[in-house]
Amino acid sequence: MKYISVLGSTGSIGTQTLDIVRNNDDLSVVAMAAGSNIELLEKQIREFCPKVVCVFNEDKAKQLRENIKDTDTKVVAGMDGLIETAVIETAEIVVTAFVGMIGIRPTIEAIKAGKDIALANKETLVTAGHIIMPLASSMGVKILPVDSEHSAIFQSLNGENRKQIDKILLTASGGPFRGKTREEMKNVRLEDALKHPNWSMGRKITIDSSTMVNKGLEVIEAKWLFDVDFDDIQVVVQPQSLIHSMVQFDDGAIIAQLGTPDMRLPIQYALYYPDRKYLGGDRVDFAKLASISFEAPDMDNFVGLSYAYEAGRIGGSMPTVFNAANEKAVEKFLNRKISYLDITDIIRYCMDNHKKIDNPSFEQILETEQTVYEMIENRW
Amino acid sequence: MKYISVLGSTGSIGTQTLDIVRNNDDLSVVAMAAGSNIELLEKQIREFCPKVVCVFNEDKAKQLRENIKDTDTKVVAGMDGLIETAVIETAEIVVTAFVGMIGIRPTIEAIKAGKDIALANKETLVTAGHIIMPLASSMGVKILPVDSEHSAIFQSLNGENRKQIDKILLTASGGPFRGKTREEMKNVRLEDALKHPNWSMGRKITIDSSTMVNKGLEVIEAKWLFDVDFDDIQVVVQPQSLIHSMVQFDDGAIIAQLGTPDMRLPIQYALYYPDRKYLGGDRVDFAKLASISFEAPDMDNFVGLSYAYEAGRIGGSMPTVFNAANEKAVEKFLNRKISYLDITDIIRYCMDNHKKIDNPSFEQILETEQTVYEMIENRW
Repeated sequence: MKYISVLGSTGSIGTQTLDIVRNNDDLSVVAMAAGSNIELLEKQIREFCPKVVCVFNEDKAKQLRENIKDTDTKVVAGMDGLIETAVIETAEIVVTAFVGMIGIRPTIEAIKAGKDIALANKETLVTAGHIIMPLASSMGVKILPVDSEHSAIFQSLNGENRKQIDKILLTASGGPFRGKTREEMKNVRLEDALKHPNWSMGRKITIDSSTMVNKGLEVIEAKWLFDVDFDDIQVVVQPQSLIHSMVQFDDGAIIAQLGTPDMRLPIQYALYYPDRKYLGGDRVDFAKLASISFEAPDMDNFVGLSYAYEAGRIGGSMPTVFNAANEKAVEKFLNRKISYLDITDIIRYCMDNHKKIDNPSFEQILETEQTVYEMIENRW
Repeated sequence: MKYISVLGSTGSIGTQTLDIVRNNDDLSVVAMAAGSNIELLEKQIREFCPKVVCVFNEDKAKQLRENIKDTDTKVVAGMDGLIETAVIETAEIVVTAFVGMIGIRPTIEAIKAGKDIALANKETLVTAGHIIMPLASSMGVKILPVDSEHSAIFQSLNGENRKQIDKILLTASGGPFRGKTREEMKNVRLEDALKHPNWSMGRKITIDSSTMVNKGLEVIEAKWLFDVDFDDIQVVVQPQSLIHSMVQFDDGAIIAQLGTPDMRLPIQYALYYPDRKYLGGDRVDFAKLASISFEAPDMDNFVGLSYAYEAGRIGGSMPTVFNAANEKAVEKFLNRKISYLDITDIIRYCMDNHKKIDNPSFEQILETEQTVYEMIENRW
């Protein structure tokens, strides 16, 4: 039996993680955490019977405590509660599927407690890769990527010597606006941006995917996960989202992972690594597939991707600025407060007006995020 | 330093193996064998200074012995000589690039002597897989495939549990006549069949590639190399020859190996396995590539492939019949004695007129081959 803690159990990755647990008798959830969706969390508690759950929102936690009085599950709240679910003694692996900076501290504490991490929180490595990776290495814990692209790279590196990586080929669908110019994207409506051609995901990540900011964040994550230079990470647009990513080695061989777009695969792979286990679902039918096409990313029009490379290369606190500016800008776009192109203009503005901090501490990362939020609120 | 014996050093795989050795200071050739091309062999001896070389043809061996009197290389001849080069004490790995049944006995002796095998001789596993694989396993020697497709599968299996293979996806270019009906292939001339769209190879294998008999032989080899059922080996036509093959696992994940068509890659991979080393040459340029297309193989018109599955499923001596009939038929086609479609008609005829021997000994395999040759000579 493998015991799991799921941080962010009510979100897209969280519910799919529970779907994997539901189908496998040798997985058991001992802890869960959610932000405020206590209706869904209650159902999950009744199905999976965890020892402890955290509701980040204190009032909601109180309410849930009342609602599940008849169960044996303990309800905790706030950051202390979140950390309690992350370090729970029985868990071997923690799925960090909380969205936002809130996911970082519990991840650090889980690593310190020796838990393997099934990493789905993007902010963790983007903003604090320089803290997380050495810590994980010194604790001997595995950072198992749950993102489909990073999982594909991780699978492609299976059994290989990482010193022999020539470059990472990170694939991108190109999103719904692939082929469009910035001029043509001027009047993009929220409804258009929320239509991803291949993947069904949360709203924020769907917007990030349309701007290719998401791919930029993945580039920065890949740098940390696989210890490569930014020059050795190449984004390849592969609109059918069938090749999930590739690695080219020193001998010119490319190893790729392909499959139908199904997030349950990378989640299950992380939970069972290095083993694989049967997973139901559609298979690629090469007889029907016809073709996979490729193109270079258009960084002139999808400037978010080039800003990400720039922020990553500058390093220090700059990736935090990139991420925080995007987070706040997308929130405003989702609330119809700004236009589509404002998203990347805001990122540009914040990067231009930030003085980089080298090797920032976790506190400095949080401060940087706040400064960026204020910078945006003051101007937009 | 890694010491190598190269059987078939003057052929396509042999010369490319020596090219790898030429570019790597940590590889050394201690033995070589060739059929009769003593002009090239002499050049190779003067460059690589092996301890011993075998010329299969006794007269040619005598002549070479005279020609290289000034060197320290010993010249041996015939099957005994071939075996001497295969079991030479200093070699750790034997590249078996001899074409035809002649390659099998030295391979068996090399395995018995504990040498790893870089396997390029197709007949070895097609006709004697049931002898070779258990022997290699009991001797603890590695059978490292040199063929690009099998190497791709082998690379895709790196670090994976073979019990979790769902199916092998063996890619095929489809050859120069892809899309044609048998009727349209009636008048194929030798010159047309010798034009392979992507790979530069020997004449016999180029014809085999055009009929897809080559792919059929690879299907049978894959069965032995990777211990899978024929039902779990699917041929996928991928005309650009960019995906060299793939493996689908139980979880639906597909791992593939891609690259430019360059036989030096699988050769080098076998020589350095499990390591990789820099190899110069073209790299895939995904920005320029545009697309990779796929289709199902047309087994109704390329009947050679379906006959291979049939022979493989029947097992015993039938794959030997398939291979020997094809070998003799292609020889006749290369000598302009028969028409293009006669090749597969001859295979069909021989399979229909053979009574299968279960679990044939090496002697029975050789007898079967002779019987097939006679069967063909008597009729065509």
